[in-house]
Amino acid sequence: MSLTGQLLIGQRTVTGTRAEIQATDPATGKPLTPVYPGGGETEVDQACALAEAAFASYRESSLDERAMFLETIASEIEVLGDALITRAMAETGLPRARLEGERGRTCGQLRLFASVVRAGEWLDVRLDPPLPERQPMPRVDLRQRHVALGPVAVFGASNFPLAFSVAGGDTASSLAAGCPVVVKGHSAHPGTSELIGRAVHAAVAKCELPEGVFSLLFGAGNEIGQALVADPRIQAVGFTGSRRGGTALMQTAQRRPQPIPVYAEMSSINPVFLLPEALKNRGKEIAESFVAALTLGAGQFCTNPGLLLGVKGEALDAFLVAAGEAVKASAAQTMLTPGIHGAYEDGVGALAGHDRVREIARGQAGDGPYQCQAALFAAAADDFLADEALQAEVFGASALVVECADLQEMQRVAAHLEGQLTATLQLDDGDLEAAKALLPVLERKAGRVLVDGWPTGVEVCHAMVHGGPFPATSDARSTSVGSSAIRRFLRPVCYQNLPAALLPEALQDANPLDVTRLVDGRREL
Amino acid sequence: MSLTGQLLIGQRTVTGTRAEIQATDPATGKPLTPVYPGGGETEVDQACALAEAAFASYRESSLDERAMFLETIASEIEVLGDALITRAMAETGLPRARLEGERGRTCGQLRLFASVVRAGEWLDVRLDPPLPERQPMPRVDLRQRHVALGPVAVFGASNFPLAFSVAGGDTASSLAAGCPVVVKGHSAHPGTSELIGRAVHAAVAKCELPEGVFSLLFGAGNEIGQALVADPRIQAVGFTGSRRGGTALMQTAQRRPQPIPVYAEMSSINPVFLLPEALKNRGKEIAESFVAALTLGAGQFCTNPGLLLGVKGEALDAFLVAAGEAVKASAAQTMLTPGIHGAYEDGVGALAGHDRVREIARGQAGDGPYQCQAALFAAAADDFLADEALQAEVFGASALVVECADLQEMQRVAAHLEGQLTATLQLDDGDLEAAKALLPVLERKAGRVLVDGWPTGVEVCHAMVHGGPFPATSDARSTSVGSSAIRRFLRPVCYQNLPAALLPEALQDANPLDVTRLVDGRREL
Repeated sequence: MSLTGQLLIGQRTVTGTRAEIQATDPATGKPLTPVYPGGGETEVDQACALAEAAFASYRESSLDERAMFLETIASEIEVLGDALITRAMAETGLPRARLEGERGRTCGQLRLFASVVRAGEWLDVRLDPPLPERQPMPRVDLRQRHVALGPVAVFGASNFPLAFSVAGGDTASSLAAGCPVVVKGHSAHPGTSELIGRAVHAAVAKCELPEGVFSLLFGAGNEIGQALVADPRIQAVGFTGSRRGGTALMQTAQRRPQPIPVYAEMSSINPVFLLPEALKNRGKEIAESFVAALTLGAGQFCTNPGLLLGVKGEALDAFLVAAGEAVKASAAQTMLTPGIHGAYEDGVGALAGHDRVREIARGQAGDGPYQCQAALFAAAADDFLADEALQAEVFGASALVVECADLQEMQRVAAHLEGQLTATLQLDDGDLEAAKALLPVLERKAGRVLVDGWPTGVEVCHAMVHGGPFPATSDARSTSVGSSAIRRFLRPVCYQNLPAALLPEALQDANPLDVTRLVDGRREL
Repeated sequence: MSLTGQLLIGQRTVTGTRAEIQATDPATGKPLTPVYPGGGETEVDQACALAEAAFASYRESSLDERAMFLETIASEIEVLGDALITRAMAETGLPRARLEGERGRTCGQLRLFASVVRAGEWLDVRLDPPLPERQPMPRVDLRQRHVALGPVAVFGASNFPLAFSVAGGDTASSLAAGCPVVVKGHSAHPGTSELIGRAVHAAVAKCELPEGVFSLLFGAGNEIGQALVADPRIQAVGFTGSRRGGTALMQTAQRRPQPIPVYAEMSSINPVFLLPEALKNRGKEIAESFVAALTLGAGQFCTNPGLLLGVKGEALDAFLVAAGEAVKASAAQTMLTPGIHGAYEDGVGALAGHDRVREIARGQAGDGPYQCQAALFAAAADDFLADEALQAEVFGASALVVECADLQEMQRVAAHLEGQLTATLQLDDGDLEAAKALLPVLERKAGRVLVDGWPTGVEVCHAMVHGGPFPATSDARSTSVGSSAIRRFLRPVCYQNLPAALLPEALQDANPLDVTRLVDGRREL
């Protein structure tokens, strides 16, 4: 399949008329063809009109039809073969193995949502049978199910060109919920986006769904994204990216006459608490696994461990030496885009130039133009507490170690943190009491709390929460990874006293969809 | 118990220092003692500080402790006896039977949430067991539960001085979720609020809970409410009232650095579709039951049927005659407040003076100063479609009948409506096809769809949705009535690889709370 540089509006391919975008190969700095002339308000309007038109039938597609659609998208992505991987490598600088793994994750995610759709937990069926004899008033028949919100705007992220992009988690969960999707493709990987978009395109046609179920737009600057979020037909927004970008979309949504949910996953420094026993018993091992996690994928993960906290002393000093050596030995890696590289350099520069921050180590310098040179810094807890700027995310392989006077100060630093996607405890048996004291604080700060291991891996499963209090996300009640993500695009509707002939299938007495139900408050399988 | 005119800040009683509020007996127009000097920023700060301090232990109170607290509140309200009813009658003009019923509903609601807390569905426990042998990567142990958001600000509503006020649905569901509550009492019924507040006060003490679990503030104007919503310790807002009031709180919340959910239940005209067969077969009966619903409680319900749609013709003409006669015969009733009465008169006046609207009938005029004289109007569908002002809620016993040329025009009017709490179909067997065509539109417009009957009764149960798209509410993903209301005050947290000693009780292998769990995607009882 050759790339055309076009927008996909329903089943049509359209050449934009606005300023063009063009990918750069970050390993070489060279532009990649084709160029993608941007869409504007006209294309947003067309895509939203088609999405709205598709919604009526798509939201009531059968569970099996919808699941098969998700599975067909996965198969069509696999059919793209190596062309997808090589284009993604060129556009992102990410290595083959990572992208092959990410493709597996993306297809697995689509298939997980297919199984979630079929299981029907998301319908949250509730039946309260009539009580005609009840005094002083009889109760009529009441039933509840969840329905899709409407067309969803999805913004692709740069750091997961497959798993958080055109057919990533936001798209998969929206489609699973019964919502058509209009994607604003990320400008850093338009070719990868077009390939994936065409795979979804093919799946829509194969499954004979209304064409407006999926559109893919490109555009330079913010115009197209802002127009999309402002469009009255859009009923929810999924975004993964910077705090600035997410905040801008939230503000656009706030100016709408009708408020809509915005699920923006933005900024997190993912604190790791090095508890004393663990640090004493296996500090060197923790240091090495830490640097491996820090530098994985040039640190370009929302869940990258960017902040470590330990109690001052010999064990922490030894940890810093070991981690510093590992950082020094770490090879440079190509970053995703010139912009991300520039922001990383600025962030590292600000830490290096901060008069209360010590540089512990820098990694190997690279040859190419946009290489990430890892960085490790340290600061005292009272200095960290005194300067909010030290909590700013530096996207890339940079981390700050905060040296606390004692466990009480560590607790104070924990309480002082902004909202996070994750919080990690490195602990041994002797640390359990300290961990118990920290846990209630961390639960309020983060969407996921983990012990040992590192936060970078985000399992796509039922119990996952990839979310958390602001600024980690704009809505802590949600997750953007895992099967619970479907809930973001649903709302409950109650049906009172409907004759059987009018009841949606999900609510019929005979339970033809075979879903779990809450009957008069009792859970039934 | 004599009324003191004080604020309840935790277990302290405090006399405010700002402008005072004083209730009016709307039946006589006379002021009621005592006066309530308002609180200001100091009292907001104190209440929020206590709520924040209480949160740490209250959110981890056992299911049984929390349920017993809710039950104790119900008992303490019952202990207030007739003093509560007589004060509420004086402050609201509502009749004894209605208030006794509302007390029953309020206490029943608290006890329902006690049972909801004990059942533990709201924890939404999910376990994904480890898969150590999985290729290419093992899966670690992942578990999810829901936790409380934090302190909640609740705004009492004027029209349900018990069920949507100090210990109403928002308070009950917040406390059930594990969130401390700071109530801004409605200025129309401070005495009723103080009595209920003291009952909660007593329950907090009896249950030996931290005092900050509940505070009750009063204040003239918007200052105290705005300060409360802006306070960084407040993590969610529950509000029932006007569109203007709800919108103002949403805007205050949007100016916070940290966004928080605002659940504002605001404005709905609750369309009723009079389908042709039903209108032909039992138009007179429907007209009479309609006017009974319209005038119930002087129409002062969020779910009052304020808009009817029928197809022009003999049957609709006959319906208008019958409904007009019933309206004419309807007695005047005291409205809740001078302000509500004034707004009702303005709204009815605007309809009466509208050159495309016909007045069908007015009810009996009353003797007192703030009497609701029912009103019924009619307009053609194309005039309704041409003027958004005709969709404005007139709070009270006023309704507009929209005459459609045919079922297609009725469908167009349905599609044109703003978001609603409810939509009702009056139908007979011959109307099923028309109902099937309308249902998908109504599901998108309303939180509850009902057949026959009238929307005014809102059952407190598991399947209820008292919510709906904007402007019915600010967040269509939620309900403010029924057991699902607890979800508004919760967020998910994932626990990865925690040793058994650190796992919250809800997530322990042995399932000591005996809750339903989703294990590897399969529902278990």
